[in-house]
Amino acid sequence: MLIAGISIASPLAAFAAPDDNGGAARNDSDQTEALRQSILDSDAKNVILLIGDGMGDSEITVARNYAEGAAGEFAGIDALPLTGQYTTYALNKDGTPNYASESASTASGWSTGTKTYNGALSVDIAGEAQSTLLELAKANGLKTGNVSTAEIQDATPGAEIAHVSARSCYGPTATTKTCPEAALENGGLGSISEQLLNVRPDVTLGGGSKTFTEKAVAGPWQGQTLFEQAEERGYQLVNDAASLAGVSAADATAPVLGLFTAGNFPTRWVGPEATVGGGDLAPASCTENPARLDTGLSLGSLTSKAIDLLASDDQGFFLQVEGASIDKRDHAADACGQIGETVDLDEAVQEALDFAKADGDTLVVVTADHAHTSQILGSTPPGLSTHLLTEEGQPMIVGYGTAEAGESQQHTGSQVRIAGYGPGAANVVGLTDQTDLFFTSANSLSLNRDLASLSADATLSLSASAVKPGEEFTATVDGLDADWQVGGVLESDPVDLGQADVLRGNASFTVTAPAESGEHTVTLTGVQTGTVLTASVVVAEDPALVPVPVPSAPADPAAGAAGSGAGGGSGVGGSGVLGSTGAVVGPLAALAALLMAAGTVLALRHRRRQGQLA
Amino acid sequence: MLIAGISIASPLAAFAAPDDNGGAARNDSDQTEALRQSILDSDAKNVILLIGDGMGDSEITVARNYAEGAAGEFAGIDALPLTGQYTTYALNKDGTPNYASESASTASGWSTGTKTYNGALSVDIAGEAQSTLLELAKANGLKTGNVSTAEIQDATPGAEIAHVSARSCYGPTATTKTCPEAALENGGLGSISEQLLNVRPDVTLGGGSKTFTEKAVAGPWQGQTLFEQAEERGYQLVNDAASLAGVSAADATAPVLGLFTAGNFPTRWVGPEATVGGGDLAPASCTENPARLDTGLSLGSLTSKAIDLLASDDQGFFLQVEGASIDKRDHAADACGQIGETVDLDEAVQEALDFAKADGDTLVVVTADHAHTSQILGSTPPGLSTHLLTEEGQPMIVGYGTAEAGESQQHTGSQVRIAGYGPGAANVVGLTDQTDLFFTSANSLSLNRDLASLSADATLSLSASAVKPGEEFTATVDGLDADWQVGGVLESDPVDLGQADVLRGNASFTVTAPAESGEHTVTLTGVQTGTVLTASVVVAEDPALVPVPVPSAPADPAAGAAGSGAGGGSGVGGSGVLGSTGAVVGPLAALAALLMAAGTVLALRHRRRQGQLA
Repeated sequence: MLIAGISIASPLAAFAAPDDNGGAARNDSDQTEALRQSILDSDAKNVILLIGDGMGDSEITVARNYAEGAAGEFAGIDALPLTGQYTTYALNKDGTPNYASESASTASGWSTGTKTYNGALSVDIAGEAQSTLLELAKANGLKTGNVSTAEIQDATPGAEIAHVSARSCYGPTATTKTCPEAALENGGLGSISEQLLNVRPDVTLGGGSKTFTEKAVAGPWQGQTLFEQAEERGYQLVNDAASLAGVSAADATAPVLGLFTAGNFPTRWVGPEATVGGGDLAPASCTENPARLDTGLSLGSLTSKAIDLLASDDQGFFLQVEGASIDKRDHAADACGQIGETVDLDEAVQEALDFAKADGDTLVVVTADHAHTSQILGSTPPGLSTHLLTEEGQPMIVGYGTAEAGESQQHTGSQVRIAGYGPGAANVVGLTDQTDLFFTSANSLSLNRDLASLSADATLSLSASAVKPGEEFTATVDGLDADWQVGGVLESDPVDLGQADVLRGNASFTVTAPAESGEHTVTLTGVQTGTVLTASVVVAEDPALVPVPVPSAPADPAAGAAGSGAGGGSGVGGSGVLGSTGAVVGPLAALAALLMAAGTVLALRHRRRQGQLA
Repeated sequence: MLIAGISIASPLAAFAAPDDNGGAARNDSDQTEALRQSILDSDAKNVILLIGDGMGDSEITVARNYAEGAAGEFAGIDALPLTGQYTTYALNKDGTPNYASESASTASGWSTGTKTYNGALSVDIAGEAQSTLLELAKANGLKTGNVSTAEIQDATPGAEIAHVSARSCYGPTATTKTCPEAALENGGLGSISEQLLNVRPDVTLGGGSKTFTEKAVAGPWQGQTLFEQAEERGYQLVNDAASLAGVSAADATAPVLGLFTAGNFPTRWVGPEATVGGGDLAPASCTENPARLDTGLSLGSLTSKAIDLLASDDQGFFLQVEGASIDKRDHAADACGQIGETVDLDEAVQEALDFAKADGDTLVVVTADHAHTSQILGSTPPGLSTHLLTEEGQPMIVGYGTAEAGESQQHTGSQVRIAGYGPGAANVVGLTDQTDLFFTSANSLSLNRDLASLSADATLSLSASAVKPGEEFTATVDGLDADWQVGGVLESDPVDLGQADVLRGNASFTVTAPAESGEHTVTLTGVQTGTVLTASVVVAEDPALVPVPVPSAPADPAAGAAGSGAGGGSGVGGSGVLGSTGAVVGPLAALAALLMAAGTVLALRHRRRQGQLA
């Protein structure tokens, strides 16, 4: 306080009332040096992307006003030091812009760096699959996680693990009907859930268990439920807080698939329904939703658990976390619902920041996929509205004006906030596009996006160079880093060896030697990159008389993947054998079709951008 | 394009189609070093604040989509390197938050650093006047400018130059009725227009000439129009592009007051009216408004002119520029109107950035006062909407859902974008409040906010220490930097010397010595700071016989302003004499009341915040 030239010692802004000069200011000193310190040149070892679905600036402010007060701040969402805005538009199939996007096109944008049409998941407008951050992280040897309060097949988590023309193709049934190009029976990549099982992230936590009770209609697990398939393929299946708490490790050998609800998670909070004239009703407060899951399954808890599991072996990780129902409750004109979900996301951001601050090598990004309807108003609008009594005891009118009562309120096309902490976060400042987030994340992790090159050094070894007719031997592939599955064929008379999950580059097939004497070729082909490896085995009544062969040439030089086929009794090596599903043999035609489809669909366009990525 | 392991040379993103991988990304390389380079430790010599009234993130995106394309960017608005979000809430008079603010409370927030209630201009919730950036800049010796496409009395420009309880008190008539506390006849500071004439910014450009045809109802210019008053007080009055082009200098002696329209400026563009169901009509394009002013009066042109006038003598400046009708046309659910005004503001930002880049010592900040109604939608909403055909040939639905047709669409309470360039701009990054912008600006200019101290070194000198009865002499004050007017009294038998404009700290009074012999005191009091200066003159039949007096003590030590009264025939010194209006003598009672009012209202609370300001 200054009276006529006498300056009284400055109070801390924190102790000033909001109506004092400077009392409402948030910076308590010059931020120049702090900002400079927040800009790091180092690479990130880990990336955590936290997405508030539908969390536009208006939704953040609605939630902050309610839960923290107008002058308050979220300890997570508002605490990231580097901030900007990004555009979220989609494309039409002809490549023209669509100014109003939705969660599938937008999630595809940051997951792949490629804009696409509304409803599509990680395919471009021509339907060509685009590699995702999660896939690339895995191929580069990082651990991966995918967490959501939605059905895990929903657009935001789905975009990281599936390539499909329509976001609704959760399981085999919907895929057969709506996404025939992806249906397994047509040689496609499968439904979103089946693609998830193929990608095999180390940690997957969310809702959407219902789809996993569907049965595969084609492929190696035809007739089995997706849960049965997951179990056969080595997943640790959990479905409640206790079983999740019991999980102490998660890796490619035993990935965690936690599905805690049949559909989406129940919201954290409930409150008054928005109605026409609702802003004129007495203001009401939000209350805890009695149907809310155990707090051990809150988004913050799931995020913390995922980080624990991913960070434990220090190999680096990519984790995506979605607060899904900010969007869903905004669609429903449910202010308390969307606010509670924002509070929930904030807890998850706090977990991520706590880890990142301790770790020092983690990029944390918080943003939205698109803006939404809800608006803070001074008086009751003609459409739907709610009158809330915030936690600081003040009335707040929230309006929903983009759809009639009972219909779904619309997304809006506004640019939204993006905020970052850690290595690479400087790239969120200023105006960027949603697709920039792909490059920001990939570059900070120094991801090699040339998948074929990541599998190019793969080796194939056989447990014996010569075997008796009908004798079993093992074919082991190592270093097939950018492939999630590998298929095998024994020739000359082709015998399908089936398909195995590739675990950290490694897979094994147990092969039974044919009755016919002579040289036979084992050909293994990575499903994702098309990398082909061959090795020869000689079948003879007395294998000891067969000379040790020289290494074979790559079976398919055009593929650019040089497989070194080597014999020599190396035995059944590699931990990958544990996860081998080589015993599962499907029809050869299906395998061939799958490989062809993979060759077509996964001939990804790895256009690197100047100045980025080695 | 990568085919099976072969990487093709990377194309520039700029040449990629938006549907290519990376084709829609805005960053073409890692921005870490560029961001670091944008953070400057130096002080700013100049600050230019550009305000898009009602320009929330949605309004920016609507305009960008229309005018530049979804993948495009504004050359000004989108080009500032440092970005953040700030909160814009207001207070109620009891100090509780009001989540939906308007342009007066918000403009007061960044103009003064003090939150206030809706409708108030640069007074706190108790009605106490708060010093503004423009006033402080002036008191610190900088030149000042205030530019708007609105009536110059409107909330945004008004907050920099007036302290009044209601934003509608443009002129004497409204003030008498609505803001009696501010009415001159009640000893107040006057209407917004009259306060503007007192503050005397070097450059004022905008609309609102109508109010200047009103007559003062009290004070020195009672009965004269405000235009006549301005002319008498030395303003250069201009009212069209040609007369503005003819202005080659602007300073305290001859400030420029350019009022180009009776009310607000006509908009740049016009277009289809928003209607219920408008989103279903054939998409239409915006067209030039035939009523638009000469392009020499566009916001970009006015900004360029203001910068030229303010920068010419290199003394540093503070300039505020408002694009006012983004808000006004959003209220009117007029998408083309608001878009054209955003394009107009963008041109102004380009002018500011061009200057700042060449200058190197200029902080440029672009932000909004509050968010607004318009939303980009995917389908026609139940309320008002417009279907536009953007300049890239795509349809865009813009919805307005916060008021019925024909009524004013509402502001919204969302946090909004703030962006900066230059020294101090680091302080806009992250989450701040609107009131932080006051400190960001004041600190980057190193403004001394202790106004009394800025006038404390003022000196008063008389042209003679002894004069004959009835002889004229001159009383000259220098260094009264934080006062815009000074009043004088000759005692003992009190004679009101009237009031003079203080021009760069300087003012003179021509005084007629009383008939009565003996020592008489000249007392000058700064109207804004209450700084009091006294000097004595001896009236004698033979002044040559009177000894030279010793300097007097300050007349009012309690005021904290030590005026050194000195006699000794120093003559009529200082350039300030040119601008002296000492001949204007008003009634003593009015002056005393004005001084009392000033003492009360302008005992500003200069609470300095820790770590800021020397």
